[in-house]
Amino acid sequence: MSVQRLGTSDPAPSSTLLHKRDLHSSVSDPVLDSMTFLNEITHRYPGAISFAPGRPYDGFFDTEQVFTWLRGYLDHLAAAGRTPDEVRTAVFQYGATAGQIRPVVADSLLADEGIDVPAESVVITVGAQEAMLLTLRALFGGPDDVLLVPDPCYSGITGAARLLDLTLATVAEADDGFDCAALEAVILREKAASRRPRACYVIPDHSNPSGNTMGMASRLELLELAERHDILLLEDSPYRWVSPGPPLPTLKSLDRSHRVVHIGSYAKTLFPGARVGFVVADQPVTDDRGRTSLLADEITRIKGMVTVNTPSLSQAVVAGALLATGGRLSAHNTRPAARYGAAMRATLHALDANLPPRERAELGVGWNRPDGGFFLTVRVPFRADTASLAHCAEEYGVIWTPMSFFHPGGGGHHALRLSTSFLTDAEIEEGVSRLTRFIRARSDTTRSPEEQHV
Amino acid sequence: MSVQRLGTSDPAPSSTLLHKRDLHSSVSDPVLDSMTFLNEITHRYPGAISFAPGRPYDGFFDTEQVFTWLRGYLDHLAAAGRTPDEVRTAVFQYGATAGQIRPVVADSLLADEGIDVPAESVVITVGAQEAMLLTLRALFGGPDDVLLVPDPCYSGITGAARLLDLTLATVAEADDGFDCAALEAVILREKAASRRPRACYVIPDHSNPSGNTMGMASRLELLELAERHDILLLEDSPYRWVSPGPPLPTLKSLDRSHRVVHIGSYAKTLFPGARVGFVVADQPVTDDRGRTSLLADEITRIKGMVTVNTPSLSQAVVAGALLATGGRLSAHNTRPAARYGAAMRATLHALDANLPPRERAELGVGWNRPDGGFFLTVRVPFRADTASLAHCAEEYGVIWTPMSFFHPGGGGHHALRLSTSFLTDAEIEEGVSRLTRFIRARSDTTRSPEEQHV
Repeated sequence: MSVQRLGTSDPAPSSTLLHKRDLHSSVSDPVLDSMTFLNEITHRYPGAISFAPGRPYDGFFDTEQVFTWLRGYLDHLAAAGRTPDEVRTAVFQYGATAGQIRPVVADSLLADEGIDVPAESVVITVGAQEAMLLTLRALFGGPDDVLLVPDPCYSGITGAARLLDLTLATVAEADDGFDCAALEAVILREKAASRRPRACYVIPDHSNPSGNTMGMASRLELLELAERHDILLLEDSPYRWVSPGPPLPTLKSLDRSHRVVHIGSYAKTLFPGARVGFVVADQPVTDDRGRTSLLADEITRIKGMVTVNTPSLSQAVVAGALLATGGRLSAHNTRPAARYGAAMRATLHALDANLPPRERAELGVGWNRPDGGFFLTVRVPFRADTASLAHCAEEYGVIWTPMSFFHPGGGGHHALRLSTSFLTDAEIEEGVSRLTRFIRARSDTTRSPEEQHV
Repeated sequence: MSVQRLGTSDPAPSSTLLHKRDLHSSVSDPVLDSMTFLNEITHRYPGAISFAPGRPYDGFFDTEQVFTWLRGYLDHLAAAGRTPDEVRTAVFQYGATAGQIRPVVADSLLADEGIDVPAESVVITVGAQEAMLLTLRALFGGPDDVLLVPDPCYSGITGAARLLDLTLATVAEADDGFDCAALEAVILREKAASRRPRACYVIPDHSNPSGNTMGMASRLELLELAERHDILLLEDSPYRWVSPGPPLPTLKSLDRSHRVVHIGSYAKTLFPGARVGFVVADQPVTDDRGRTSLLADEITRIKGMVTVNTPSLSQAVVAGALLATGGRLSAHNTRPAARYGAAMRATLHALDANLPPRERAELGVGWNRPDGGFFLTVRVPFRADTASLAHCAEEYGVIWTPMSFFHPGGGGHHALRLSTSFLTDAEIEEGVSRLTRFIRARSDTTRSPEEQHV
């Protein structure tokens, strides 16, 4: 490259200062370009109805709640005997790397989920994303270690794995959810290739992207499988309490032998902008000198090199909210959960009404039927790629996410993800109507004449 | 390992579930054990005066400021034309990955530092620590890439490098600060070994741990060196505005050719508990298809896999504080800077008084003379290790940090770091008196009889 000496007049920056190929490969992940494209499409067609963003509905948020929750936590500290100076330190200063609201979160997990773990096994993180990165970094030590992920899979975990140059193995998800037999086959294949399947990532409830929920039998089978093959389960749980009716037990609450690392988030329920998540890692770790620690302690060490500690301010507001309901996150989510259930029902109703069973079968279109959560999957007979998305946004005024974005090993070209969480009923009705017109037109043009008359 | 089937009664957790040697090597970094030991010592001797924690003094913090700053930012958004719903979204929802207060930070950098960069080159991070991790991850793509660090060096950057399995090369710091000749020698050595020195990390102002400040001539020489050898400079700037009198120009403000990635933090000045930092990365990046981006864009991609976005709440409070002083961080720090200057002077005065020049020379003790900041270094004639620290805490009631904690390649066994930022003048006077007694006693016992009579 050209050399420019300091002090020369107006040395224009060399446009070749850095080459992308010299940067870490994770910045060149094609999924990132896809996401950028999706954002551009959303920006370019502001009038389009978007089933893309996996955001919580914000009609139930209230700006003044932030002040109330923060004040509530400060009052809680004062009532617990902290002096004004100590209260100030708790909110203003650096805090413990593992977090200062661990007891509040542990109490909440017991109250809501029946997860009974010591506060010392909890690490408070900057959202579930940091929890994933820290857990992966702690657990993956050797070049033969493999992370098992469902296919399709949330891009946050595959992104964190790429950032750390980890090896992935994908486990095809069945139409009705997680497939334990497929997982076991992959484990055996990996072991036969002298690799070490170390952990399997799952979202048992209202999974992102599929919207599927793992049944009780599969949960028990998965735990047994993890035990038998000596792997850990990374249970990500952002979509609990976003559906009417009680959820199934978490894997962690069923875990009798420390097989489950449980990752949680308050970003989909309480307060996205606080970016507070956590990881429960009560696994014992032994070193060569016979000393023991918890996996949470090792994760904390990693956190010290990533964010030092989760903002005290965010922790304070989240703790204030939890304390206001006796630790019950569920109590905050009665109205939102009903809303998400209603939105999903409205979406399914509109799909049913617009694409009756006979036409659906003729076209080769189908979808799953979640009872809540944020997402559902629609199978289509044409290639649901970015070109197709751009056409749909421009001509039909509706946006969705190509399911191929969520297949780290390729695939998913004939499905799209609809997010229903952020839309009103009127938007859902109109959006599904537009989407149906697009699907119908696109299916007609992609099928051969013979197919069209079957 | 033993296999436990689900459903057997009370299966006690296997204590060998995880072995530390199977975890990532970064959790076994001996520096982490050293830091744990330091924390234990601090906990075990609560009556000891501690020169260890590199924390800002909190006597100037006021809990109610949090509410005022947050309200100030919300009012600012409303005055800028945002509707109440938009204001709510700005604080409650997920925000842009690169941050929502980038323009406020860019304005502040111009007002305080004369750093004139577009807001698009700024990424808001969870403290400077995340900025370091993201920048390293973006920049280090190949196995031959080498990160240059001063020796001694802040443990946050070496920890982040270990987490990413990067190769380090250390550059010995001279007694009076950064040594450009030593840096050039290391660069040439690394290049000769077919490695690629990619970037050099520096804290030009009141460095952690040494307390040294890089002179103006060294700053210019360093920029020239970076240009000539095609490396980037990672300028970490947490200790600006913590000293009376105007600081020297940042490397970034002197940078004419995008050689400097500037990392900043509000954790030492405005609000540690908000955990808001930032990175300025205006370097152009070109890909194989000729498309250009800024390094900030690539860092943002990495951030999406680490924390998704910096908490909106933390950003709002920090922006509220900056807006209250027309963007001037310096204006918030007039009183703290005077306090840090006075604390450093008090420390130096007490050292001078307790260890007059003649005795100092006899013992082989010395220290540098920062004009502010948080740290100074004391050279001692004995091994200042953890055993020595434990003895000092127990027998003399004073705590410090062994400088060896900050030497990634080993060394630093005869120096200790004193942090003066967190102590009152009375604590400093008493603490230095105790420390002097320890140094004197320890120096006497470690010198041979001949030496003692020289």
